[in-house]
Amino acid sequence: MKEKEFIDIIKSTINPELIGDDCAYLEDLGIVISQDSLVEDIHFKFAYTDAYKLGYKAAMVNISDICASGAEPEYMTVALSLPPDKDGEFIQKFYEGVKAAAPDIKIAGGDITGSCEKVYISIAIIGKTAGRTISSRSHAAPGQLVIVSGEHGNSAEGLKRLLNGENCPEKFLNAHLMPRAEREFSRQIAENITAPYAMMDTSDGLMDALSQIAYSSGVKLSVNYNKIPHDAFVDKANVLYGGEDYKLVATIPESLLFKLDKAFVIGKVEKGLGVELDGKVLTKDDIESKIFNHFKG
Amino acid sequence: MKEKEFIDIIKSTINPELIGDDCAYLEDLGIVISQDSLVEDIHFKFAYTDAYKLGYKAAMVNISDICASGAEPEYMTVALSLPPDKDGEFIQKFYEGVKAAAPDIKIAGGDITGSCEKVYISIAIIGKTAGRTISSRSHAAPGQLVIVSGEHGNSAEGLKRLLNGENCPEKFLNAHLMPRAEREFSRQIAENITAPYAMMDTSDGLMDALSQIAYSSGVKLSVNYNKIPHDAFVDKANVLYGGEDYKLVATIPESLLFKLDKAFVIGKVEKGLGVELDGKVLTKDDIESKIFNHFKG
Repeated sequence: MKEKEFIDIIKSTINPELIGDDCAYLEDLGIVISQDSLVEDIHFKFAYTDAYKLGYKAAMVNISDICASGAEPEYMTVALSLPPDKDGEFIQKFYEGVKAAAPDIKIAGGDITGSCEKVYISIAIIGKTAGRTISSRSHAAPGQLVIVSGEHGNSAEGLKRLLNGENCPEKFLNAHLMPRAEREFSRQIAENITAPYAMMDTSDGLMDALSQIAYSSGVKLSVNYNKIPHDAFVDKANVLYGGEDYKLVATIPESLLFKLDKAFVIGKVEKGLGVELDGKVLTKDDIESKIFNHFKG
Repeated sequence: MKEKEFIDIIKSTINPELIGDDCAYLEDLGIVISQDSLVEDIHFKFAYTDAYKLGYKAAMVNISDICASGAEPEYMTVALSLPPDKDGEFIQKFYEGVKAAAPDIKIAGGDITGSCEKVYISIAIIGKTAGRTISSRSHAAPGQLVIVSGEHGNSAEGLKRLLNGENCPEKFLNAHLMPRAEREFSRQIAENITAPYAMMDTSDGLMDALSQIAYSSGVKLSVNYNKIPHDAFVDKANVLYGGEDYKLVATIPESLLFKLDKAFVIGKVEKGLGVELDGKVLTKDDIESKIFNHFKG
C-alpha cells in the first residue's frame, strides 16, 4: 500500500480539513506547522552519512515544508530515538548539524528516547505567517506560470552513485546528504504575492509535485522538459521523478517574476486536468507508478 | 548514559532557554509546544496493547504535557513509521484511538513513513495560552502547597502485572495502557491562578517530578507519604517512583484550593533544597537512581 492511500484512510478517520499540504495552516494562531520523520535504513544509511549531516538534513527537510507554505520558519521540536550504541557524541554532532541548517530557528524542546536498533528522527516545525500569503496546492489557476527554484535530479543522482559505489562529485553528494531549503525563493514569493497561488517542495520529485498541484487545483500544468534546470550528467528519469531535491515549484502570475532573484519558468497553468509534458498528457497512474516512494521497496 | 545527561548535551549545543519544561512556552505566538515519542519494544509491546490503545495513549501522553503547562491543547501533528506488516487497518485503528483520546483536538498533518521492523510514533502538540497562567517547574515558592491530581503507582502496578503474567484488574490495566490526561485539573488551576506556580506531569514518576521542581526552583518540597493518594494494592516503590501515571503535581497558594474540584494536598514548599519525604531529606542521587527511566535496560 502506498503513502497516499494511507493518507486517505487517515483523512476519513479524523478531521480532514487540515491534511493535504506540506504544512497545515492554523489561521487562528497565525502559524503553519509540519512534521517529518527520517528513519535509519529507510531514509538514510550510516554507510553514507553521519550524525552531523543527518541533523542538518533532518532540519532542512522540515524547513523546506515551511518554505513550501510561504511562511517564515521560526521554531522546531526535535525527537530522537537512539539505540544503545549511540552516545552523547552522536547527540552533540546531530544537534550541531541541526543548528548549522537553521542558526536562526529556535529549538523548543522535543524528546529523546531509546530504540532497539535503528535511529529514528522526527522534527516538528512552526512557521509564522504574518506578512506572508500562504500557499495551497489547490490554489493554482489558469494563466499562471509554473516556476521552479533550481536544478532537479541532483539528489537522486547522488544517491544512485552512492549506492553503486561510483565516483560521486561533491555537487551530487551534497544535494543528497545536505540539501538546502529554498528560504529566500519562498520569502520573495510569499511577501510579494497577493492572489492565491500553489507552492510545493519537490521532496517526492518534480512530477509528483506537478501532479499533486494539478489534481488538487483541477487544472492542467503544461511543462517543457528543456526548460527544467538540470545538470547534464543527470538522467531524464531522475530530473522528472527523483526525490529529495527540496526545490520549490510554484504557480504565480507573470507580473511577479521581476520580484524574484532566481526563478526558472518551466511551463504554464491551463484549463484541463493533469500534467502535460512536451505536449503529451501523462495520466495520474503514469506519474504515481514512477514517483519516489519509500514504501516501494 | 541517562536522558538527563543527554538533555544537558543538547542544551549546551543549541539555544537552551526553551528547554526544560514539559512544554516550551512560545510567548510571541501565544502557544506552548511539546513533542513525545513512543517506540515499539521500548515504550510498548504488541503482546499487551493494540493499534487503538496505542493511538489513545500516544495522544494522551502529549496532551498531558500541555496540561502540565496549564495551556489548552488545540492541535497535534502525528508521525507514524510502520514496518511492512502494518497495513491500512492498523492506521485506521490507531487514528481512531487518537481521536477517542482527543475528540476536540485537531490533527494538523504529520508524516507516515516505512520502518524496517518496529513501530515508531512521534506526536507534536500545540496548546493555546490565552486566558491561562503558564507554569514552569522553576516557579515553586516557599509557602505554597504541593498538590496532586490523583492516585499514583497504578500504571506501574499494571505494567508489573502484565510483565509477570499476573491477573491484572481493569483499573491497573487502563492506568497503564489508556491513561487519561488531567485536563480539567489543569484548566481549573491555570484559569484561576495569577501568581507564578510550578506544575509537571508524573510521566517519570512522582518523586522525579518533585525533585525536578525542587532543584529547578531552588526550594524544598516536604511531603508525607500517607497523604499521597494510592491504591492499597500498590507498592510504596511504585507509588513514589512508578512512571506513566500522567497525574499532575503543582505548587499553589492555599487560597486556590477552593477553586479546584479535586486536589490532594501532599505537602508544602519550604526554604531549603530538595525533597523531604516524611521528615527525611532524599538526595538527588537517591531519587535519580530509582526513577522510571527507559534508558535503564
